[in-house]
Amino acid sequence: MLLAMAAAAAAAAAAGGARRGRVLTSDTMNPAIRRVEYAVRGPIVTRALEIEQELRKGVPKPFKEVIKANIGDAHAMGQQPITFLRQVTALCLCPELMKDPSVPSDAKERAQRLLEACGGQSAGSYSASPGIQRVRENVARYIERRDGGIPSRADDIFLSTGASDAIVNVLKLLVAGAGVSRTGVLIPIPQYPLYSAALAELEAVQVNYYLAEERCWALDVAELRRAVTEARQRCCPRVLCIINPGNPTGQVQSRECIEAVIKFAFEEKLFLMADEVYQDNVYAEGSAFYSFKKVLKEMGPPYAEEVELASFHSISKGFMGECGLRGGYVEVVNMHPEVQAQLSKLVSVRLCPPVLGQMILDTVVDPPKPGEPSYERFQAEKEAVLGALAEKARLTQEIFNQTPGIHCNPVQGAMYSFPRIELPPRAVAAAKEKKQAPDMFFCMRLLEETGICVVPGSGFGQREGTFHFRMTILPPTEKLKILLEKLSTFYTKFVKEFS
Amino acid sequence: MLLAMAAAAAAAAAAGGARRGRVLTSDTMNPAIRRVEYAVRGPIVTRALEIEQELRKGVPKPFKEVIKANIGDAHAMGQQPITFLRQVTALCLCPELMKDPSVPSDAKERAQRLLEACGGQSAGSYSASPGIQRVRENVARYIERRDGGIPSRADDIFLSTGASDAIVNVLKLLVAGAGVSRTGVLIPIPQYPLYSAALAELEAVQVNYYLAEERCWALDVAELRRAVTEARQRCCPRVLCIINPGNPTGQVQSRECIEAVIKFAFEEKLFLMADEVYQDNVYAEGSAFYSFKKVLKEMGPPYAEEVELASFHSISKGFMGECGLRGGYVEVVNMHPEVQAQLSKLVSVRLCPPVLGQMILDTVVDPPKPGEPSYERFQAEKEAVLGALAEKARLTQEIFNQTPGIHCNPVQGAMYSFPRIELPPRAVAAAKEKKQAPDMFFCMRLLEETGICVVPGSGFGQREGTFHFRMTILPPTEKLKILLEKLSTFYTKFVKEFS
Repeated sequence: MLLAMAAAAAAAAAAGGARRGRVLTSDTMNPAIRRVEYAVRGPIVTRALEIEQELRKGVPKPFKEVIKANIGDAHAMGQQPITFLRQVTALCLCPELMKDPSVPSDAKERAQRLLEACGGQSAGSYSASPGIQRVRENVARYIERRDGGIPSRADDIFLSTGASDAIVNVLKLLVAGAGVSRTGVLIPIPQYPLYSAALAELEAVQVNYYLAEERCWALDVAELRRAVTEARQRCCPRVLCIINPGNPTGQVQSRECIEAVIKFAFEEKLFLMADEVYQDNVYAEGSAFYSFKKVLKEMGPPYAEEVELASFHSISKGFMGECGLRGGYVEVVNMHPEVQAQLSKLVSVRLCPPVLGQMILDTVVDPPKPGEPSYERFQAEKEAVLGALAEKARLTQEIFNQTPGIHCNPVQGAMYSFPRIELPPRAVAAAKEKKQAPDMFFCMRLLEETGICVVPGSGFGQREGTFHFRMTILPPTEKLKILLEKLSTFYTKFVKEFS
Repeated sequence: MLLAMAAAAAAAAAAGGARRGRVLTSDTMNPAIRRVEYAVRGPIVTRALEIEQELRKGVPKPFKEVIKANIGDAHAMGQQPITFLRQVTALCLCPELMKDPSVPSDAKERAQRLLEACGGQSAGSYSASPGIQRVRENVARYIERRDGGIPSRADDIFLSTGASDAIVNVLKLLVAGAGVSRTGVLIPIPQYPLYSAALAELEAVQVNYYLAEERCWALDVAELRRAVTEARQRCCPRVLCIINPGNPTGQVQSRECIEAVIKFAFEEKLFLMADEVYQDNVYAEGSAFYSFKKVLKEMGPPYAEEVELASFHSISKGFMGECGLRGGYVEVVNMHPEVQAQLSKLVSVRLCPPVLGQMILDTVVDPPKPGEPSYERFQAEKEAVLGALAEKARLTQEIFNQTPGIHCNPVQGAMYSFPRIELPPRAVAAAKEKKQAPDMFFCMRLLEETGICVVPGSGFGQREGTFHFRMTILPPTEKLKILLEKLSTFYTKFVKEFS
């Protein structure tokens, strides 16, 4: 010990006597990473986790559990996995279980076919970097069915680690230039904060276009034009991101609107990124999902062959909700072959997306067919999930709008409500004193007093002076009702307190 | 159709008459991404895949199959998965199978405990962003056992999507500055090309230090000092990456060498990144794995409390070889708490690592214990894999060194040989004519004539004028023998042809 200390002293002397200090501090770290923000798992969630621990330790609270309505995490909220998906992947992991008589034959056959597509017939082998060829082909066929026969090629499909991974990879290709020629990326406000986080990290220029809350969060080409025109002063706008159905805003775009956006992208020379991960989550009467690919191709020349598009999908949403398995894909349309080769190279550095996520994707895009042993159970489970979501979307809007001061647009699709709340000036002042955004102040108080965890609108962006929060519609119906009522009651109390 | 064409013409006119052209081309894309290279899945592998397709189509070749010895993909080469790992994860995916009598009780209990650590008891829920708390705690305990009791904290463990993901995230934190103050990162040459690819993408400055081939790829502090001194002219060296056991070079560092490296990092104020994914793959007599953490902590002050270290591990290597599940972790040591909070934030943007990979990791760091039902089978399977690898490491060196002109260092650890090959001047000239690196020229010819796919040394870096290739030791023993002999015979023929 003495020897060690003597050596230490010698080393310290050799290093100049002073403490050496750390290489990496918040002053010396990558400033782009420091600027990244991600509200969906931000301070409010950190506090929610602390409160959970306090509850476990027996700290008295006016509630018994924390309800995490901050994130679209379906299974965590009690949604049941779809049996066929899980049977297939379990057998892929442990083929010894093929002998189990409780598993239907079509699940066994599917597992066998998937294993045959893997090196050494093991899910533990790396797949090809853009994904298992069989799965890419099934995705292409799924897209063709979805889009009424418009062709899709397996070569244009890149499987990914959730949609986020693919979104960031496509953004990476697009970011170039310096100063006023730096790539600008148009994103909706409110947005899903993966976009702002990725742009901060890549040091691209974020260009906001505002959705029209008063018209059910519609996307307006005039507003796109305003945004792009203003942006040309400070950057080179090259990318237009659309989230349809909307996150956090829940609107579903009309076909006309999509056509107008494509024309705009053509005229302004923008690369289109269509985040379509909620394509199976459309609830409102009169709403239907149209893919950007379908509309683009049906518009004919010059759009069909010229406008570049990347469309993203995920196994985390829809009726499957398999967030933890991290699966997804991007389809690229009209991408320059050289650039596509660069994308292939880029994904190869990370070797491959998680193979189990790819296998789940296979079962989603190629589900059991009528007459097959798993068909009825699969359909029943799928319809139960989507039916319940539609009911909860309706309920959410209904209950929120009963409370004066809360304004909630119809949840036409996706998994969230994003109601606007009026906050009294004294609440805004109290927030300012705590150096918090007013809606963060509200959400923190809500969490502390009711255990309900929702994300402040400031984390998604909103028009100056308006306040919102995002809440998932995922809790089981009966629980959601209680939650919505509790939240409305708290809001009324809060407003009274600060009036 | 006529209408569509008329509309097209009108649109083209609106757009100025000329073709609009693509937004994204190889000229306008991110130049940093264009510079990325990744040899392990580079042109040689692309060609190997083409040849496989040609074989399937019946094109006559002087061989019947392509053997992909380019990548450490154990299961693809026929290594069998470890049963316990697969039983646990299969039950996590499909808890209905808990009733199957063929699965031992300890696998069922483990699956149950893992599910209890998941939201809604489903592997389909997002985990916490740094990973499932239970798994992080088990990893910490594993590290303590490995390092003879030196404490490890779950809070310092971040689970990841394979080791690659964690390596890139830590590098991201460290890259800052511009011009001569841009972060320089020391990497070994030869290196695993994830490092050069990540540095190209992040626009950090790659600083090469050469391993001493003539001394079994030893790491020399004098060479580190030369590299860092020269680098200070053009950048700010802040990071030192070590791969131990070495990839592609297979050396295992001695404890003395690790101490010397740590002292150097202390003196030169470098952040240490220790890629220790092959920690279970040590074969040579007299070689043993020492973790950088253990050596650092045992060196006492000032090193123990001051040198910052990130150590990486993976489920893709070792005895499990679960590449496709994409699991791994980083342990950070002496990281500034503010920076660690930034790392937490950064990983939260991608939500969570694949949950199944986390579960496999749990079974690896907390394997069945003596007396438990799965213990004997687990041990037998593990020892069979590691025993076979040791035998194949020995064989590889032995057979290669029998051929004049091939020089192969002992494969002390990891999964690769990296023999040096002498190439005749006429072969070098022929390669130059084809605008290929001479070892690429050799490897391409090898592939075309024998179906053996190995990666040229130029993809990993090597001393100017020397030529190597990397080949895995993973094929089954009997197949490997034939492969090594075929390769040696081809080499002799190749040399003769160009002499």
